[in-house]
Amino acid sequence: MTGGVDLRAYQETRRALVDAALDRALPSEDAPPPTIHRAMRYSVLAPGKRLRPILVLAGAEAVGGRAEAVLDTACAFELIHAYSLIHDDLPAMDDDDYRRGRLTNHKVFGEAVAILAGDALLTLAFRLVADNAARLGDGDVVARAVVEVAEAAGTQGMVGGQVVDIESEGKTISPDQLDYIHLHKTAALIRAALRAGALLGGGSPAQVEAIGRAGRALGLAFQIVDDILDVEGSLEELGKTAGSDVRKGKVTYPSLHGLAASRARARGLVDDAKRALDPLGAAAEPIRALADFVLERRS
Amino acid sequence: MTGGVDLRAYQETRRALVDAALDRALPSEDAPPPTIHRAMRYSVLAPGKRLRPILVLAGAEAVGGRAEAVLDTACAFELIHAYSLIHDDLPAMDDDDYRRGRLTNHKVFGEAVAILAGDALLTLAFRLVADNAARLGDGDVVARAVVEVAEAAGTQGMVGGQVVDIESEGKTISPDQLDYIHLHKTAALIRAALRAGALLGGGSPAQVEAIGRAGRALGLAFQIVDDILDVEGSLEELGKTAGSDVRKGKVTYPSLHGLAASRARARGLVDDAKRALDPLGAAAEPIRALADFVLERRS
Repeated sequence: MTGGVDLRAYQETRRALVDAALDRALPSEDAPPPTIHRAMRYSVLAPGKRLRPILVLAGAEAVGGRAEAVLDTACAFELIHAYSLIHDDLPAMDDDDYRRGRLTNHKVFGEAVAILAGDALLTLAFRLVADNAARLGDGDVVARAVVEVAEAAGTQGMVGGQVVDIESEGKTISPDQLDYIHLHKTAALIRAALRAGALLGGGSPAQVEAIGRAGRALGLAFQIVDDILDVEGSLEELGKTAGSDVRKGKVTYPSLHGLAASRARARGLVDDAKRALDPLGAAAEPIRALADFVLERRS
Repeated sequence: MTGGVDLRAYQETRRALVDAALDRALPSEDAPPPTIHRAMRYSVLAPGKRLRPILVLAGAEAVGGRAEAVLDTACAFELIHAYSLIHDDLPAMDDDDYRRGRLTNHKVFGEAVAILAGDALLTLAFRLVADNAARLGDGDVVARAVVEVAEAAGTQGMVGGQVVDIESEGKTISPDQLDYIHLHKTAALIRAALRAGALLGGGSPAQVEAIGRAGRALGLAFQIVDDILDVEGSLEELGKTAGSDVRKGKVTYPSLHGLAASRARARGLVDDAKRALDPLGAAAEPIRALADFVLERRS
């Protein structure tokens, strides 16, 4: 099903677009007050897969929209992802000193600036979405785009998942509770990235809905693979201490279901995602290829 | 100039509208995950003046709009104000245990939940603004409303002021630097509250501009009075330790300019604010009365 796309070339061209747009969207390091802008750029412009912004572009392209037209919304998802990592890494939360081999934001800039940098990234994200959507649609479309992001990032999405995750540390939780955490903490934003792209790309309600279903499955698969990599990974491969979930007393898919069942579940979810994309035909090939990438990635 | 308005009655009716709208806008305490919603409600629904939301309503009414039509945007400003206080009170920032006689959010819910509650309030605020604006205007109006809020709350506004404030603690700063902190940390959001109300109330660009000038002066006056009250206040009156600015090594208007000059500056700014409102005639009476209130308040 994914034969039509050179995934590496697709990812490279889209990542270059996103990286250039991120550089433009973020205030420069010497814009006053410089400290906060340095802190924002430090985390956002760290090397990364840019999975969420590329999914925004792929969502738009899957419904016949142009990647370039939704770049600012793509950036917004990367800013929200970065803000969530900065806050998650704080001593009061996961207390991580390193992320992918680099010092975490608060280790470089201090906790106060790290908290504020996260706040500022979230704030800037909404500005980017609203401005971008206003170039493409009417008031209803702008509001729907902002609501899409706000729901995915708020207590019915990412923040909700993070709260339950923190409250579950060191406790026994059920498979349903683990699904809740993963669906909210990780899958909600990935789903919203695809949906926002499809919405702003001019997709029909049925297309946005189909892409959203694919995004939910893809997002859950992504987190299960993350859990697997945390068990399997080494310091070299992941750039963070392997097994950090175990160290923190976090229940993961492998710890609850075993590695083999976790791999099978991730594969099944990627199949679900592809099936959900059937109505979109060839235009959704990049999303299908990205789904395979999520399953097969090693970091 | 402020003869036409019974300020107490105006504030009471508008505060009742805002309090009811806040209760509706916030997820209920038993909505999952309950902890985060309890934390959000704890801080937002604490007794307060509701100055920022009332300014949104007054901004709309000053250009002939209806208070009820901009209530969700009014709530958004209170959520942003509450989020900023929750994050400011954290140990990594101002490290306050009490605010207005109540335990601060992190003392009740822990630091992790307090950080996330702030994040969630900021997120919900943008949703409220976008939805509200879409009921009143086209894509351009929705984007302008979101941008207004994002600029006031971001690194060119509140967060920017907070960063410089933190970096200035214990240092000698110039009058210009202190103005920068106060204008960004406090006045930006107050200005934006009035501007957003005027924008969504259907005000002309000239009206929004005039109201914004008034908001800037009013916001700066508000912070100067805050500084004065911090020096003069007692634990009973303010509900926090009097002189906490001094204790934290913060430069304030009174410490830099003396109490008499600070009072004169605040009074001059309130006069400036009223002058800026001249073109709006009688419809701006509530804003003028609120400006007097800002000057004369004792807490």
